[in-house]
Amino acid sequence: MELVEVRELYRNKEEYIGKRITVGGWIRSVRDSKSFGFIVLHDGTCFETLQVVYHDNLNNFAEISKLNVGSSIIVTGQLVETPQAKQPFEIQAEEVIIEGYSSPDYPLQKKKHSLEFLRTITHLRPRTNTFQAVFRVRSLLSYAIHKFFQERGFVYVHTPIITGSDCEGAGEMFRVTTLDLDNLPLTEDGKVDNSQDFFGKPTNLTVSGQLNGETYALAFKKIYTFGPTFRAENSNTTRHAAEFWMIEPEVAFADLNDNMRLAEDMLKYIINYVLENAPKEMEFFNQFIDNGLLDRLNNVVNSEFAHVTYTDAIEILKKNNDNFDYKVFWGCDLQTEHERYLTEQVFKKPVFVTDYPKDIKAFYMKLNEDNKTVAAMDLLVPGIGEIIGGSQREDDYEKLLKRMDEMGLSREDYEFYLDLRKFGSVRHSGFGLGFERCVMYLTGMSNIRDVIPFPRTVNHCEL
Amino acid sequence: MELVEVRELYRNKEEYIGKRITVGGWIRSVRDSKSFGFIVLHDGTCFETLQVVYHDNLNNFAEISKLNVGSSIIVTGQLVETPQAKQPFEIQAEEVIIEGYSSPDYPLQKKKHSLEFLRTITHLRPRTNTFQAVFRVRSLLSYAIHKFFQERGFVYVHTPIITGSDCEGAGEMFRVTTLDLDNLPLTEDGKVDNSQDFFGKPTNLTVSGQLNGETYALAFKKIYTFGPTFRAENSNTTRHAAEFWMIEPEVAFADLNDNMRLAEDMLKYIINYVLENAPKEMEFFNQFIDNGLLDRLNNVVNSEFAHVTYTDAIEILKKNNDNFDYKVFWGCDLQTEHERYLTEQVFKKPVFVTDYPKDIKAFYMKLNEDNKTVAAMDLLVPGIGEIIGGSQREDDYEKLLKRMDEMGLSREDYEFYLDLRKFGSVRHSGFGLGFERCVMYLTGMSNIRDVIPFPRTVNHCEL
Repeated sequence: MELVEVRELYRNKEEYIGKRITVGGWIRSVRDSKSFGFIVLHDGTCFETLQVVYHDNLNNFAEISKLNVGSSIIVTGQLVETPQAKQPFEIQAEEVIIEGYSSPDYPLQKKKHSLEFLRTITHLRPRTNTFQAVFRVRSLLSYAIHKFFQERGFVYVHTPIITGSDCEGAGEMFRVTTLDLDNLPLTEDGKVDNSQDFFGKPTNLTVSGQLNGETYALAFKKIYTFGPTFRAENSNTTRHAAEFWMIEPEVAFADLNDNMRLAEDMLKYIINYVLENAPKEMEFFNQFIDNGLLDRLNNVVNSEFAHVTYTDAIEILKKNNDNFDYKVFWGCDLQTEHERYLTEQVFKKPVFVTDYPKDIKAFYMKLNEDNKTVAAMDLLVPGIGEIIGGSQREDDYEKLLKRMDEMGLSREDYEFYLDLRKFGSVRHSGFGLGFERCVMYLTGMSNIRDVIPFPRTVNHCEL
Repeated sequence: MELVEVRELYRNKEEYIGKRITVGGWIRSVRDSKSFGFIVLHDGTCFETLQVVYHDNLNNFAEISKLNVGSSIIVTGQLVETPQAKQPFEIQAEEVIIEGYSSPDYPLQKKKHSLEFLRTITHLRPRTNTFQAVFRVRSLLSYAIHKFFQERGFVYVHTPIITGSDCEGAGEMFRVTTLDLDNLPLTEDGKVDNSQDFFGKPTNLTVSGQLNGETYALAFKKIYTFGPTFRAENSNTTRHAAEFWMIEPEVAFADLNDNMRLAEDMLKYIINYVLENAPKEMEFFNQFIDNGLLDRLNNVVNSEFAHVTYTDAIEILKKNNDNFDYKVFWGCDLQTEHERYLTEQVFKKPVFVTDYPKDIKAFYMKLNEDNKTVAAMDLLVPGIGEIIGGSQREDDYEKLLKRMDEMGLSREDYEFYLDLRKFGSVRHSGFGLGFERCVMYLTGMSNIRDVIPFPRTVNHCEL
């Protein structure tokens, strides 16, 4: 069908003014008087709506006036400028074809619905203003991430979702199985016979693609992953989902400084991309969801990010220990209250905290010369705290092995990973960006359930 | 580190000739004579290698000459043109720093390795020419898909991976669970107590995002998904994997013709993108993997795709029934031999087969007026057969319900799907493209295990 999109009308108004066009969309509202009426039409292609004016010269005038919110129609008529009105133009209908009816029990009536209510109708909520804005930004942000990395020659790697190793220790995992739970095959000693499972052994859903990603970084130099990851954690908070997407770039011949530069460039790039490509949506968030949003994002884009070592950060935080719920000391993990204090009160802009104590970080992070800290970095941003975490990786075979032994990790499980240090090891670094956290940061939405189309959380897996 | 990438040298040769530069990469081969030697260096940023010339004026000359294949080095020196040689330039080393050693038992020695052998070292095979080419094309193809849809205003939707409905009937599914298999909670009647599972009910890995995608198409008009999907089928073939990626666009106010136009435009666009952005890799495939590849792809790009109804196709095929293993008749499913005969022998270009019998297609496809066929389309391409399958969706509430009842599907499971037909239904269409099949098609690789970084198949889930 040759429909003109409302997005196109707003972008190239001049081409359409005075012309006869056909548009299709869903009715947000209808109001009529005796001889004419107005329809607010939304076609999903942009945030803006189109006003339709219709008159009683249409043979279905009465029927149109009775259409319920949510009905779909196809309208043909002339687009005319409306210099006195709020909207820049309207369409004067010569024909209104009813494509699909709605009904009075359509859940999205013309009134404000709570986010909680909308969570119960995940199949319909994308039709509302808020979720139109959220999920368009989510889409643009995804693309901005691909664009950023591809323009720089990074290779996109699909790391596996089902994994045979639960050894990364990054959190509780989901088991994946084809065994019949009501009729499990057992071995002679009465245990579940995992050899009969689909893969001949127990398998889980991935918690991170990093280790796989490293194998590709040492072949392509610059790679990134962007895929779903999973946590089976029983935490019912506004920031945790069982299924979420993650971006994990990894670069060979890159140290921690290169890594931080990449993270800073990426974050600025993707924020700029969304600000430029979704101005109406971002205005909407700034006005109705989070008043300080645009100021905060503009501050990020225009700042040179600060840098502070963990050790120095602890000294700074100690002076404010009286005001923290969790008192800091060298060796402690930073809590959100500490992170936000650093980025919001101390530096007043994004800040990289580097060189954390090795005991609170993962085994694969490169040991610094002090033998106490590792070449790790977390990027803290105002309004949220940590948004990115990364490190230079241990590229020394012996040191990595020693660290694995200390942490009780089996060499066998990690043979492939050790191989990377045996055959042409190079310094390399990478980081992880939780995609949903990033969407929340860019939209001001405060519940992760509202930035995932069909969220999965404890006891919730609908549709 | 400020390294110049080999990709950059080939792209902007003029800027670097005569200059002193630093490069880093892995050694593909070393050969030396008494006073000088050559290194073939690969840095992963492009298909091409860089020749390094080094002389015995370097204090580590002897050590360099003994380096094993796979070692990583950082070389500084002048880039000079070599008009007489095969390669356009070489670097004359003033310094060679050894970043990481390799060893004589490095599995990738300078000889031809079989694809079978390389499958046993999925962490190292991306360092070979073949897999450099495959996985760069895979990455470019992913990006081309995003670029195509984003440029046309489609919204990228992350449909869920874990799903509570196994009702799509599109194949065997993997169960996802946090229950302890060695210690399953039971209900009073001795069955597994699924209410104690993470989501309070049984859940599976998705086989398709289409139904979820439709809910977003009826909000955003044009959407696409691009994510992993799963089949727990016990089929050990060269074309089946348990985990693979799929692209599923869905468009509201679009009928079957619009759908076919979109599929044709997309396929041409992504092939062109890869031909333009990976010419060396595509030459390599054409020369070493599949001799007719470039001709075949160019034919696709330059053809106007043909169209034939299933009913007409059956008449054509019947005339050749003697030569088919499976004899065709109206109502039968088309096999690969039929599909390839149609596209390779009859039409000699890509062809859409449309309007299949309803009984061999899914419940959600729009019933044609003949009440016998549905508005489905499969795109067949030379060399492979079906590459895309799609349909216009049934948008009539009553007809859909009738079809669901006929097929014994429960209304309750599909309430959300029926709602789309209840509240502002519109004609809409979409299709599915198996991403790995597409990578195979563009590279000529014949085993799906060789186009997935870490393939998952029956009894295989390594790394």
